[in-house]
Parts: sequence; structure tokens; C-alpha cells
Amino acid sequence: MAARKVATAKARQRVQEPPPHPEESLFGAYEHASMRRLLLASLDTFAELGYHGTATRDIARRAQVSPGGLYSHYASKQALLERISHAAHDGMLARMQAARAEGGTSRECLGRIVRTHVGFHAKYNTTTRVANYEFHSLTPENRAEMRKLRQEMERVVAEVLNEGAKAGEFLFADGQLLTMFILSLGIDVSRWFRPGHRLTPEELARQYEELVLRAISAPKATSANGQPKANRGASR
Amino acid sequence: MAARKVATAKARQRVQEPPPHPEESLFGAYEHASMRRLLLASLDTFAELGYHGTATRDIARRAQVSPGGLYSHYASKQALLERISHAAHDGMLARMQAARAEGGTSRECLGRIVRTHVGFHAKYNTTTRVANYEFHSLTPENRAEMRKLRQEMERVVAEVLNEGAKAGEFLFADGQLLTMFILSLGIDVSRWFRPGHRLTPEELARQYEELVLRAISAPKATSANGQPKANRGASR
Repeated sequence: MAARKVATAKARQRVQEPPPHPEESLFGAYEHASMRRLLLASLDTFAELGYHGTATRDIARRAQVSPGGLYSHYASKQALLERISHAAHDGMLARMQAARAEGGTSRECLGRIVRTHVGFHAKYNTTTRVANYEFHSLTPENRAEMRKLRQEMERVVAEVLNEGAKAGEFLFADGQLLTMFILSLGIDVSRWFRPGHRLTPEELARQYEELVLRAISAPKATSANGQPKANRGASR
Repeated sequence: MAARKVATAKARQRVQEPPPHPEESLFGAYEHASMRRLLLASLDTFAELGYHGTATRDIARRAQVSPGGLYSHYASKQALLERISHAAHDGMLARMQAARAEGGTSRECLGRIVRTHVGFHAKYNTTTRVANYEFHSLTPENRAEMRKLRQEMERVVAEVLNEGAKAGEFLFADGQLLTMFILSLGIDVSRWFRPGHRLTPEELARQYEELVLRAISAPKATSANGQPKANRGASR
């Protein structure tokens, strides 16, 4: 029995817990350490090889979990992708709704939403990239669920745009198209932004906010402070 | 022999040439009709199932070509993806360079480039979506080649931005970041735009052009004509 105890302790030592992952705060707490390892392993493997290029044994190996161990925590490879997609979509929507709820002028509110959206895609670029690029790898049911969350995000943006137009803060031709224009900016950040970029996610988000606000501000809003909008970022 | 001729003729009749594909003008001429069928079949299958979710026999079946026939025209599934990616990247770069070469003010030039870039991604949304979403499915060599073409596109945009800034037409903080901002808009159009959208690719492109120009125009450019930029689209 003593020999077996030693062997078990050695086996435990062999499983190294991976260092903190820059995006794991998005996934909340885990019931079991190997669930964390499996999820982070699937995230990085999907990002590297694509969902269809990834075998469950690749994930299990990377997570230092047996293939059977994987299935005791997650029903399938799809369950892991669903978990990742949900974390990205739920996390984004909740932050956008919080940004909206803070109030202020439409200009302040939209600025905060753009900053939140762009910053989120930069900070969680692996998770959002997998969620966006593997959207077509979700089952139709999971896809439908993510689509609902995306429509909620669109609604948040469209409502603030309409309020700003009514208040005379914004001037634009087509609010529905402008919503896509704005959301595209953040979404595509997940394609090209990587950790170590010369700009931090926050710096990037501030510049995007400024550009979007300039694109849609009503002319009187431009002249109200007598300042070109491009120079206002630093004074905030 | 007569019987064999009849059989061959019947076999030919069974192969229905697919109707004109809305994006096939991007691919130029074919030496052989089955090359056209294979390429269009691979395009639509990659778009539906993803590159890794597609087997060469799926493409052959859809193209009504035997698996052996596929390999007599294309060395591999990768060769088909490479052909599609090249068509997207070469076609886009050539049009952007042509838009740049037309001359005029930096404002006119950038407007034309944005219109071209956005319109291209809307018109050829399947080809550009496959090229963008399956970028990671290319071999490292093919990926490096596409990356060079993308850098050329970035250079076209960045140069016009810098010229416009020097001429006092544009005002922005970070030309390199602004280049990504602008290119993201077109790229993401390939994700969400589909044929039958209430706006034509040209209408969409005009609105995006207007928004981008408003976002970066120097303040004096705004007041030079005394008109808010949002109202100028119709008068052009």
C-alpha cells in the first residue's frame, strides 16, 4: 500500500498545472482542476489547428488528461467549443449592457460601448477569435443560441444610436448598417490583435472610440467645443 | 463502337454544367469545363462545411467529376484553397492599386479605395469569406504569400492616409492603426453580407466610404463646403 501511495503522489506531480492563462478570467471557476486544463487546452488547440483540425486526443494530451478523463468532464469536442463560444458571447453582451446602463449622454454611452467592445476583442483575442472563426463549427442549435446573443448586442448599439440621433448628438443615414459597421471593427480586432502589440487593448479601444464618434457626430456637436475631435482623447 | 459513342454522349449529357456563379468572374478562364465545376464546387463546399470539414470526394461529387478526375486537374484540396485565396487576394490588391492610380485628391483617392475594398467583399462575399476564414488552413508557404499581398494592401491605404495628412485633408492620430480600422470594415463585410441584402454592394460601399471620410477628415475640410458630410452622398 505504501508503494502505491508513492506512485499516486508521483503521478500527481507529473501533471503540471499550466500557468495562469491571460484569458481564463472569462471562464469563471471550475469544479475540478482538470476541467480548467481541458478548457484552456481546447481553446489554444482550436486557435492553432481549427476545430475540425483538432482531435479530442490532442486536447487530452495537451491537458495531461486521459481521453476517458476528458469525456467524464465534457460530453464531446462540441461541448468544449460551446463552452468557449458561450463565454465569449455572454461575456461580451454582459459588458455591453453594463456599459449602456452607466448612462450619460448618447455620445458618452456609445463611446463606452465601442471601447468595451473593441477592448474585449483585443484582451480576449484567442477566445473571441475561436468563437468567431469557428461559429460555423457549432451545431445548428448552438449557432442559433449565439445568434440570439449577437442580436442582443446589435440591439444595444442600435438603441443608443437611435437615441443619439433623436437627441441631435449623432447624424447618420442608416442605423442598422452603422450598427454592423461598429460591430465589425471590434470583431475583426480578434483576427489581427495579439498580445505584445505596441498598443494595449485600452489604448486601441480609445482610438477606435474616437474614430467612431467622429464618423457619426452631428456637425453642431463638432463645433460645440471648438476643438477638432482627434485632439480630445488626451484631455479626458 | 457506335454503342460506345452513344454511351459517351449520354455520360456527357448527365453532367450538367452548373449555372453561372455570381462570383466566378474572379477566377478567369478555364482550360477545361470540369476545372470550372471543381473550383466552384470547392468554393461552395468550403463555405458550407469549412476546409477541414470538406473531403475531396465531396467536391468531386458536387462537381460531377470522378475523384481521379479531380486529381488530374488539381494536385490536392490545398491546391483548390490556394487557387481561391489567390483569386481573392490578387483580385482585391489589383483593384485597390487601380483605385489608387486614378489620382485626384487624397480624399477622392481614399474614398475610391474604401468603396472598392468594401464593395469587393460584398460582391465576392463567398470567395473572400473562404479566403479569410480558411487563412489558417493554408500551408505556411501559401500563408506567407497571402500575407505579402495583404501587406501590399495595407501599404496602399497607409500611403494615401499619409499623403492626405500631409496635404491637410486628413487628421488622425495613428496611421498604422487607422489602416487596420479601415481594412477591418471590408473584411468583416464578407462575414455578414449575403446576396439578397436590402442594400447592393455599391450602396453599402458608398455608405462606408462616407463614414470613413467623416471619421478622418480634417476640421477645415468639414467646413470648406459648409455641408455636413452625411448629406453629401446623394449629391455625388
